[in-house]
Amino acid sequence: MTADTRQDLPFRYEHLGQDGAARTGLIHTGRGTIRTPAFMPVGTAGTVKAMYMGQVRELGADIVLGNTYHLMVRPGAERVAELGGLHRFSTWSGPMLTDSGGFQVMSLAKLRKLDETGVTFQSHIDGSKHALTPERSMEIQALLGSDIQMQLDECVRLPAPDAEVERAMLLSLRWAERSLKAFEAKPGRACFGIVQGGTVAALRVESAKQLAAMPFGGIAIGGLAVGEPQADMLAAIETVEPHLPADKPRYLMGVGTPDDLVEAVRRGVDMFDCVMPTRAGRHGLAYTRFGKVNLRNARHAADPRPLDEASDCPAARDYSRAYLHHLVKSDEILGMMLLTWVNLSYYQSLMAGLRAAIAARRLDDVVAETKAGWDRGLGD
Amino acid sequence: MTADTRQDLPFRYEHLGQDGAARTGLIHTGRGTIRTPAFMPVGTAGTVKAMYMGQVRELGADIVLGNTYHLMVRPGAERVAELGGLHRFSTWSGPMLTDSGGFQVMSLAKLRKLDETGVTFQSHIDGSKHALTPERSMEIQALLGSDIQMQLDECVRLPAPDAEVERAMLLSLRWAERSLKAFEAKPGRACFGIVQGGTVAALRVESAKQLAAMPFGGIAIGGLAVGEPQADMLAAIETVEPHLPADKPRYLMGVGTPDDLVEAVRRGVDMFDCVMPTRAGRHGLAYTRFGKVNLRNARHAADPRPLDEASDCPAARDYSRAYLHHLVKSDEILGMMLLTWVNLSYYQSLMAGLRAAIAARRLDDVVAETKAGWDRGLGD
Repeated sequence: MTADTRQDLPFRYEHLGQDGAARTGLIHTGRGTIRTPAFMPVGTAGTVKAMYMGQVRELGADIVLGNTYHLMVRPGAERVAELGGLHRFSTWSGPMLTDSGGFQVMSLAKLRKLDETGVTFQSHIDGSKHALTPERSMEIQALLGSDIQMQLDECVRLPAPDAEVERAMLLSLRWAERSLKAFEAKPGRACFGIVQGGTVAALRVESAKQLAAMPFGGIAIGGLAVGEPQADMLAAIETVEPHLPADKPRYLMGVGTPDDLVEAVRRGVDMFDCVMPTRAGRHGLAYTRFGKVNLRNARHAADPRPLDEASDCPAARDYSRAYLHHLVKSDEILGMMLLTWVNLSYYQSLMAGLRAAIAARRLDDVVAETKAGWDRGLGD
Repeated sequence: MTADTRQDLPFRYEHLGQDGAARTGLIHTGRGTIRTPAFMPVGTAGTVKAMYMGQVRELGADIVLGNTYHLMVRPGAERVAELGGLHRFSTWSGPMLTDSGGFQVMSLAKLRKLDETGVTFQSHIDGSKHALTPERSMEIQALLGSDIQMQLDECVRLPAPDAEVERAMLLSLRWAERSLKAFEAKPGRACFGIVQGGTVAALRVESAKQLAAMPFGGIAIGGLAVGEPQADMLAAIETVEPHLPADKPRYLMGVGTPDDLVEAVRRGVDMFDCVMPTRAGRHGLAYTRFGKVNLRNARHAADPRPLDEASDCPAARDYSRAYLHHLVKSDEILGMMLLTWVNLSYYQSLMAGLRAAIAARRLDDVVAETKAGWDRGLGD
């Protein structure tokens, strides 16, 4: 089976079950099916950092995310296309979602300038000049061979005056239309719109309604998890959710902690991405059934027990906490490899548990058990 | 099968074949059998950097090396022993060789002081004070659970006056006797002596003869590959080899390039260790059938071909040179993981080829073919 042979299957969301506002389903794409709720590991520059793609697949990840900004500045979208696209380049053959590049232009690039047309910037790598418009973002994502392309939007830093939040939301709507127009629809692929509006309920509703009326394959909620309290984020989801089409996937961008995922799933979100499990794994932090564990802490130095002896993940099951502590303290690459593996494994198993719980209409119980595990901690 | 159940099997060298001075055989240890000539990946601080131990095993490595200096300063030999030994700590269940710690004391530690007793030094990690004597080195290696322990020796920097080389060689002989006395012989384990004497033939011969008369399990040639021309190293091996017992393994410490390995095997060496394949892999360099390749070079940026499509190693076979180039240029951990994998795979396949060639008495032909491959290069 090569990825290319299945790309004539249509992109669609298949609803399988519901528990309160929480949903479970399948997103069918040309490169395979995504079980939802889904967590997408972030494959920034064509690699899920410190992991082999085969491992990512084995953990149960159905889809990974690629960052348009990183790939456009190095090695370049045209280069990736020449090499057969991002799937072949990175050896990930399943579905792939790419962001628009806009968010990272604003957070990473130098000398940014934004106007109605789009945004121009200098690469943080070599200072080279680039432009990103809704049309160019769509083109780049098509060159990469993305299965789910994201519209270019403007995500304002919070807090910001309501007028500024509104301006960016309205600009994002105009860019949504331009993105859809530029998106070359192909069977099995989709373009998603992005709800903006900060924490202003009326603006979020306006944005969601407008996007729901456009022929997007799915709708994302953007501009959250940028430092606001979790309650504000959840309130924004609750505000937006009733206005999202039930027959399309909903994607909460850049979120989050395990608790964020659980609470957002409860409120009807289907898809997530976040660098947290991979980044934390490179900094000595493990996410487990027993909560977040800092392996740098001296309490682990003589502990022969694994992080989770019942885990399916070899990294959580077969290595002592003392060894992980030693690797982290010694800045060994293997420490980053093992803890990234632990964290992505936990995120995937968390999502699998939520999917099963929704299908069985047991979500509240499963969430309570899950949170009790986090509260219990590793024990002594 | 656990490692512990087999530790009553005796340590011995079984000679299987000879081609000129080159030998092929088996070293039986309590934790398994080592096919020789053997290359031992270096597992410095309890990890073969950027590799899972399962991968190292799958590449055909029968034995890995652990560094006494690194492990004694962090996490400490007593700590490793409490945790069940270095095998359990690192998850490597096969044979393991540990060095004496002396070489790295001289190259890494601060405020060293050497006398007849041994060497005192401060850790390069935290400045803590440590002492290493022949007896303490044996004790540490036993605490680690090493299968092949190395005597403490003094390796002088070259060039050095002959009198200085002689003094260090004679001291190393006295330390050899103390090491053997301190070594707690157990079935399946061995202690190796180390030939010193710089590039002074008479001193090398004297050292080898004295060590050959002692009840070591094997003999190492130390103090080479420290910057001298390859011809000097090979001459030293030729000087020493006739004086080494035929029924014991010979180990050339810290060597080397693929060409060094081939030429030393031709001269009767059975075992090697070197950080070269692992360190090079972390710096964008690949060792392949087609010679050494610098993936940082722009010539690879658009090259869709793998490093070696005929390789058994997924890292050499399944990833484009363009992707490897991208990972290296982007300082991605996966680049280090893949190139370390490529390099250890090549080193293991090189040794497997030499073993088969010696057994078939075709060594000269195989060496000629091997070198022709290196000279040919990757091509365009």
